[in-house]
Amino acid sequence: MTGVISLINGVPADSVASTDRGLHYGDGLFETITCVAGRPRWLPLHLARLRRGCERLQLRFAAFDTLVAEIGALAQGDERCIVKLLLTRGPARRRGYAPEGDETPTRILTRYEWPPASPRAATGLRVGLSAVPLGINPLLAGLKHLNRLEQVLAQAAMRAQGLDEVLMLSSAGHVIGGSMSNVFFADADGLFTPSLSDCGIEGVMRERVCAAAERCGTRVSIRPVSVPELAQVREAFLTNVRWEVQPIAALGGRALSGHDHVQALRRWLDAAPA
Amino acid sequence: MTGVISLINGVPADSVASTDRGLHYGDGLFETITCVAGRPRWLPLHLARLRRGCERLQLRFAAFDTLVAEIGALAQGDERCIVKLLLTRGPARRRGYAPEGDETPTRILTRYEWPPASPRAATGLRVGLSAVPLGINPLLAGLKHLNRLEQVLAQAAMRAQGLDEVLMLSSAGHVIGGSMSNVFFADADGLFTPSLSDCGIEGVMRERVCAAAERCGTRVSIRPVSVPELAQVREAFLTNVRWEVQPIAALGGRALSGHDHVQALRRWLDAAPA
Repeated sequence: MTGVISLINGVPADSVASTDRGLHYGDGLFETITCVAGRPRWLPLHLARLRRGCERLQLRFAAFDTLVAEIGALAQGDERCIVKLLLTRGPARRRGYAPEGDETPTRILTRYEWPPASPRAATGLRVGLSAVPLGINPLLAGLKHLNRLEQVLAQAAMRAQGLDEVLMLSSAGHVIGGSMSNVFFADADGLFTPSLSDCGIEGVMRERVCAAAERCGTRVSIRPVSVPELAQVREAFLTNVRWEVQPIAALGGRALSGHDHVQALRRWLDAAPA
Repeated sequence: MTGVISLINGVPADSVASTDRGLHYGDGLFETITCVAGRPRWLPLHLARLRRGCERLQLRFAAFDTLVAEIGALAQGDERCIVKLLLTRGPARRRGYAPEGDETPTRILTRYEWPPASPRAATGLRVGLSAVPLGINPLLAGLKHLNRLEQVLAQAAMRAQGLDEVLMLSSAGHVIGGSMSNVFFADADGLFTPSLSDCGIEGVMRERVCAAAERCGTRVSIRPVSVPELAQVREAFLTNVRWEVQPIAALGGRALSGHDHVQALRRWLDAAPA
């Protein structure tokens, strides 16, 4: 890959131990951090989620100050770039799922070039429904952990269909979110977005949008969302830290036209501190 | 780790590219192959499952002959050893879940020493019920893929409780299997073992036991198993390629005493070709 620079445990490197538990089990977490004008954006929100993940997985990582310094160093140089962090439980000393508890975590920071925008970013994205279910596990729900085969399968099918994103349903049939984004819908009462207590990722931009909506006086209901509800929706948008707030132009082949909430939220988000 | 030898894509090595999709997403498969007297056991069954996994994940790997030769080479030298294969989709050329489709898979073969037997292996294992659910995803069910955080969490709790194994339930509440084994129960009609169409791993030893039972004239029913049924069970055993057939001495604190099926199956399995 061009423009890729990696720091592994603080040292420029491009390989990890083949015994790493991140590789064997997906035993770790990640964050995708957008950097603009040499500064990582919304870093406290990323780090807060990472801390929640470490607690949930009982992954003992304390070097947050070092991590912040390393992310700051990688953010330099380009007007815009993406810094991806992988934090794994580290190399295993023996075979088997059970962690010993005293592993030394591996932190892998990689700087990527900012990818080109989708040609449909200005007019709205084409979004379908994925046939790949999301397994329900409240112990892992919300976390940005490294078990991502469901998203891999969903995006492989999405690419084949020429879509920009797919909404994924839990194995119980509830709408959870995009394969790489969270989703918000508008109704007469304001906005609603799926509850993530069963599965899905609690996105940094989702959190910012919920806060922005409150400031705008727009109610956001976090609740289970069923598939039949999608047929009633007039406005919907996707969020992640790269896209920020991206309107859905077509959902399952049906055109959506509303943009009122997106415009108001974008004004507030643009004015808010990074 | 002592006694560990690794071959990565055929070359002695101990590290993999930090861009590998196995590390980023758990995008790959594994096999744990037992080797005795310099020979891998039940290799055709391992390879058949690996092929099924490659098809399901659309992971294009063709070098099965090379793989077999490498496993054979690693199996040499010790009376008994474990060879673990990781087969990932390979290094990514760009960021993002979607595979390009033309990645070069990474094969990582590691030889481990045969671990010491549990002190309770002779008398039967102490088994509990895990509080960690298994997410339901029929597209991934049965495969030995690299998304194993559920097993990691289950075994961390199991160790803390001093148990040898835990049975895991699907998020719908069905008994699926052990965290590192399949499970069989005996009733008046013969044996029954959980259906794995929602989640769980189709173990090589499970397949051998089903075949052995048929030869012994014992019926094996593969079907959904509920938690209340466990209270009626008099005989149960766990299977994996290392343990082979291992009786459960206590299930959720209740002693199990039957050994009839285990003894008959062991006689047949010991006589069967490896």
